[in-house]
Amino acid sequence: MEFSVAQIAALLDGTIEGNEEILISGLGKIEEATPEQLSFLANPKYEQYIYSTKAGAVMVSNNFIPENSVTTTLIRVEDPYASFTALLEEYHKAVTFSKSGIEEPSYIGENSNIGNDIYRGAFSYIGKNVSIGDNVKIYPNAYIGDNCRIGDNTLIYAGAKLYEGTIVGNGCTIHSGAVLGSDGFGFAPQEDSTYKAIPQMGHVILEDNVSIGANTVVDCATFAGSATKIGKGTKLDNLVQIAHNVTIGKNTVMAAQAGISGSTEIGDNCVFGGQSATVGHIKVANKTTLAAKSGIPKSIKKEGQVLFGYIAFDIKKFLNSYAIFKSLPDMNQRLRELEKKS
Amino acid sequence: MEFSVAQIAALLDGTIEGNEEILISGLGKIEEATPEQLSFLANPKYEQYIYSTKAGAVMVSNNFIPENSVTTTLIRVEDPYASFTALLEEYHKAVTFSKSGIEEPSYIGENSNIGNDIYRGAFSYIGKNVSIGDNVKIYPNAYIGDNCRIGDNTLIYAGAKLYEGTIVGNGCTIHSGAVLGSDGFGFAPQEDSTYKAIPQMGHVILEDNVSIGANTVVDCATFAGSATKIGKGTKLDNLVQIAHNVTIGKNTVMAAQAGISGSTEIGDNCVFGGQSATVGHIKVANKTTLAAKSGIPKSIKKEGQVLFGYIAFDIKKFLNSYAIFKSLPDMNQRLRELEKKS
Amino acid sequence: MEFSVAQIAALLDGTIEGNEEILISGLGKIEEATPEQLSFLANPKYEQYIYSTKAGAVMVSNNFIPENSVTTTLIRVEDPYASFTALLEEYHKAVTFSKSGIEEPSYIGENSNIGNDIYRGAFSYIGKNVSIGDNVKIYPNAYIGDNCRIGDNTLIYAGAKLYEGTIVGNGCTIHSGAVLGSDGFGFAPQEDSTYKAIPQMGHVILEDNVSIGANTVVDCATFAGSATKIGKGTKLDNLVQIAHNVTIGKNTVMAAQAGISGSTEIGDNCVFGGQSATVGHIKVANKTTLAAKSGIPKSIKKEGQVLFGYIAFDIKKFLNSYAIFKSLPDMNQRLRELEKKS
Repeated sequence: MEFSVAQIAALLDGTIEGNEEILISGLGKIEEATPEQLSFLANPKYEQYIYSTKAGAVMVSNNFIPENSVTTTLIRVEDPYASFTALLEEYHKAVTFSKSGIEEPSYIGENSNIGNDIYRGAFSYIGKNVSIGDNVKIYPNAYIGDNCRIGDNTLIYAGAKLYEGTIVGNGCTIHSGAVLGSDGFGFAPQEDSTYKAIPQMGHVILEDNVSIGANTVVDCATFAGSATKIGKGTKLDNLVQIAHNVTIGKNTVMAAQAGISGSTEIGDNCVFGGQSATVGHIKVANKTTLAAKSGIPKSIKKEGQVLFGYIAFDIKKFLNSYAIFKSLPDMNQRLRELEKKS
Repeated sequence: MEFSVAQIAALLDGTIEGNEEILISGLGKIEEATPEQLSFLANPKYEQYIYSTKAGAVMVSNNFIPENSVTTTLIRVEDPYASFTALLEEYHKAVTFSKSGIEEPSYIGENSNIGNDIYRGAFSYIGKNVSIGDNVKIYPNAYIGDNCRIGDNTLIYAGAKLYEGTIVGNGCTIHSGAVLGSDGFGFAPQEDSTYKAIPQMGHVILEDNVSIGANTVVDCATFAGSATKIGKGTKLDNLVQIAHNVTIGKNTVMAAQAGISGSTEIGDNCVFGGQSATVGHIKVANKTTLAAKSGIPKSIKKEGQVLFGYIAFDIKKFLNSYAIFKSLPDMNQRLRELEKKS
Repeated sequence: MEFSVAQIAALLDGTIEGNEEILISGLGKIEEATPEQLSFLANPKYEQYIYSTKAGAVMVSNNFIPENSVTTTLIRVEDPYASFTALLEEYHKAVTFSKSGIEEPSYIGENSNIGNDIYRGAFSYIGKNVSIGDNVKIYPNAYIGDNCRIGDNTLIYAGAKLYEGTIVGNGCTIHSGAVLGSDGFGFAPQEDSTYKAIPQMGHVILEDNVSIGANTVVDCATFAGSATKIGKGTKLDNLVQIAHNVTIGKNTVMAAQAGISGSTEIGDNCVFGGQSATVGHIKVANKTTLAAKSGIPKSIKKEGQVLFGYIAFDIKKFLNSYAIFKSLPDMNQRLRELEKKS
């Protein structure tokens, strides 16, 4: 993709000093940028490079007064760094959503409705009675089972799998190998010590702007009509396990390999570290932070706590206890000496 | 799928009071059910709803005597709740096994034999010399390598992958993204500090009625002709790791993200919590329960123990130790005071 | 595959006593081998079997002097066990790389260059501008995004997924379900308590002879042009998480379910146990050994340490502390008794 300096300046509400017809196809650091790239000058420490940069154009502050002669084209904006990150995001979005059309062979079942600006990669599968919104990108080898519903502007990467009846909102991202809607782990012990599967007939709902990491699994709910639900804006990293009947609130983030046991409710704006976990059937209050590798054993009612530990409690207390744990042999020795004296 | 009240009553050995021709297509709670749904009345607390329910039919006990007039059709059975769960299971089974036929394109190699009532989803792959029983459902994008053998009534969900030579019994369920038969992690350190792969030439055996969760991995055994084996009726949750040469007994359940290291033998009827693990080359006795996040460091010889801890030991003792761990700073303070006095 | 005894002897620089035309199609233990199999005698304890073995041929030491009559064909070599493992490796390599040709349907985008002796399984996907070397085996349902580069002699198993721009060296093995290049978990908190995705525009590099386990995930780097990098000869087991901007040195091995947080640098020749982890933005020195389930909380500067623990420290010290942790209730009791006396 190429944009002229004029187009970029218009997008950023900036003014141009120099050649407005230069074509830009990428972004780069001011000291490394090539003639096809756009850069920016925000930190005065880098001012020296503006006089020698090879960038096709550089965004500078409206207030910037060059001390030497400048050969690159300038785009004057209010906040060059903010403009740069905004461009970066626009560019990334353009790249990410650039795929379109249908690669063959791909499969679509009967009674399925697909919106506009769709990409359906080769070997992608869409079942029966599926509804998909606009600007959805379904990469190769992805699987979308019967009766799924997917909103607009959602990305489904290669080999992601949505079981029958999964509902995905707008603006979601589902990374490769993620599985939504597999059976919850529910088995009833029988008298002969075998286990009988408890039918798992519910589904999974992702609200808008949810991100699901690579190879993460979200199980379906147990009962028909009910859902394991991931709230709006929540982000799950890779290899996370979300068990059946769990609900996670809005804008909660969970790092890789975290695991939430069945029927637990996680609040809004929580932060879970890598390899952390909770037991099942509890409620975790809003704004709870759980450190990496920690486990929550019972409901957390007070909001805003920071917890740590194998069986998690207040992080400061945990660290104090752990510091003494490290010197337990020394403590034991001190105790022995007192015993001798007594 | 629709069934008449007459068909359902025949299946349950029940007697009908009302219209036996009503068609039922689902199950619902008595207070919410619609005319196409069947419900049940087991708990007397809900009796009020039998007089106003919109359900097409309701299962009641043979002993039930209505106090008011009933407009819905009744199916009288011995135990309405047991009949309801039996129907739920039958219904779920019917739904789960409802797919059939071959969607194109799909791939099958030479000399492979496939039974009756098969579903082969689009983009599913069956290699050479594969043998598959009756009523097996292979969902889209699943991969079954050469020389695999699969029994009857087994479900292989979208994108599951079976390496060459994997053997799967009857009545198994393999969820999306599960991998059976990948190379064991065996590398011999060389003098130049590189590692050389030790050929992993064995395979994986799942006995009957095994369930494998989404994105779970079971590695193949090291030696040709030998197998990593999962015993009859054992259930593994999502994202579980089973290393090479492991054997797991019958009717053992392992929750999500558990990991069993190489060449370990797990007994029958064990229960492993989420994120639990064992070291390699040990034996774990039957009926061992390992709490979540715990690790077994050596063979467990006594049956029926409940273990907990980072390096696991008896759960009661662990919880006692952990309770004191939480107050270690206080204990340290008490010790200091005694030291001052002495 | 079949080889004559003459071919095998030539490969091993051995001399034949007996029928050099016998065809061998496998390897077996001397006491169990069949006439189509080759065996070996290295340990004198097994000498008895050489007189009764049914093996088609047996490798023996140049020095071996039979005490009774031998009916099997002998191949005399310097070190029978070394010859056997060498053959095992050759055989395994031959089997592993035996697939070739193109199964249809498979997909390849424009401007992609593919070397010789390639296998492209059915439903495998190769995007645009991809470059693939010689003797690369791409199994069914694997996905290789646009602009990827793959060296020679690399195995990509069924359903592995390489995002756009991934670079893979020579002699690598990527197991089923592995994901390379998914977005790093980078989200900037906003004032309204939502999160905004930070564009992840880098890629992943695997150097030569890297092995990636089944369902393992390696995220792409954040910045365009930079990479999450796995060094030459490093081996990652199954279900491992490598976050964005991580670099791992050469000949490091990580067992299953280990997790490395973002921007951390792991040295050469490290050994990480199963379910172990590190925090982000640290450096871990060469030859660090981290025990299973342990977590590294800060940079490790001294090489060659062996660490253990929830927050890891020296393994001997950890085990000493843990031993006392197990008897904390007893220690508390002793303290109480001293308090009573004082």
